[in-house]
Amino acid sequence: MLYYPRPLSRLTEELARLPGIGPKTSQRLAFHIISLAREDVHSLAQALIEAKEKSFYCSRCFNITDTDPCRICTDHARDRSLLCVVGDPRDVFAMEKTREYRGLYHVLHGAISPMEGIGPDDIKLKELLARLQQEEFKEIILATDPTVEGEATAMYIARLLKPMGYRVSRLASGLPVGGNLEYVDEVTLGKALEGRREL
Amino acid sequence: MLYYPRPLSRLTEELARLPGIGPKTSQRLAFHIISLAREDVHSLAQALIEAKEKSFYCSRCFNITDTDPCRICTDHARDRSLLCVVGDPRDVFAMEKTREYRGLYHVLHGAISPMEGIGPDDIKLKELLARLQQEEFKEIILATDPTVEGEATAMYIARLLKPMGYRVSRLASGLPVGGNLEYVDEVTLGKALEGRREL
Repeated sequence: MLYYPRPLSRLTEELARLPGIGPKTSQRLAFHIISLAREDVHSLAQALIEAKEKSFYCSRCFNITDTDPCRICTDHARDRSLLCVVGDPRDVFAMEKTREYRGLYHVLHGAISPMEGIGPDDIKLKELLARLQQEEFKEIILATDPTVEGEATAMYIARLLKPMGYRVSRLASGLPVGGNLEYVDEVTLGKALEGRREL
Repeated sequence: MLYYPRPLSRLTEELARLPGIGPKTSQRLAFHIISLAREDVHSLAQALIEAKEKSFYCSRCFNITDTDPCRICTDHARDRSLLCVVGDPRDVFAMEKTREYRGLYHVLHGAISPMEGIGPDDIKLKELLARLQQEEFKEIILATDPTVEGEATAMYIARLLKPMGYRVSRLASGLPVGGNLEYVDEVTLGKALEGRREL
């Protein structure tokens, strides 16, 4: 019988359920949390609850938000003729970090994957089509993941939207900036060659 | 100005303050926590608060506990003639996991380190000496870390306790089990040679 105080073991178990937190890390975190000031622990606990209670999906773009519509959808300084379609709310934040994109977003919450039984009706595609009736976009940028599922989803959506007269584009595939040619996988290198640009 | 919903950014910041959790991990955890069921988030938050509120140090051995004295100090099945002196509560759990030790513990909460200005009075050494007046131990095992500070602490305590007639021992230094001789550092290998045992 291994001795472990109950509150500590409960916390260790709870933390170990988080992704990427193994038993060693969760134990280290639990000990650290016990050593924190009371206010700091309460502040962390409150942040957890608030993040859960006050976050929901924007009814327009389906990004995570604490106001509806979200701050991006209601920001009139943004270019409302551009729509970037992504798979996951995380991707919105990744795009925003580039500070290169000033248009709107639409989050699909998934990708079409026949292997996993995820079809076009299981992602926010109907919602995208409904949105296109109400808002006026000139270009739709398909920024789904560069994976089999992400590519399939992009192709599916492109085939729907092109006949409707939209300019539809896809993020470029190619060499990661700062990378080393010899370490780039052959598929990516092939894509970089295929997508080469004249200088 | 990067767009990030407030409750999410607050949680990301709070998580990033934990040891070993960088900005990427904290963001991933924050998104995961938002995607959890409400009950699961409340359960995690409650575990945090409970671990903090209900954990304290045992008044005898200074290990983390939720009862005073702790369950090890009050366990009469244990060998009360053996005392293992460790630097940190974590070390008690490490020792317990071996399932080889059935004696009692004393947690110093630190190690003597003149470099950092930590002297004998800054660790639970007075408390150890007071305990030796009240409890009867035959052997004191010095299980401080095998570092400069840990060794210095062990030497300091050994010099105090030996004249008092205690049998004082130190954990063996040597090859880690399952290790590879060629990858063992020279200091450890030297210790292993010095501490060799006749077969």
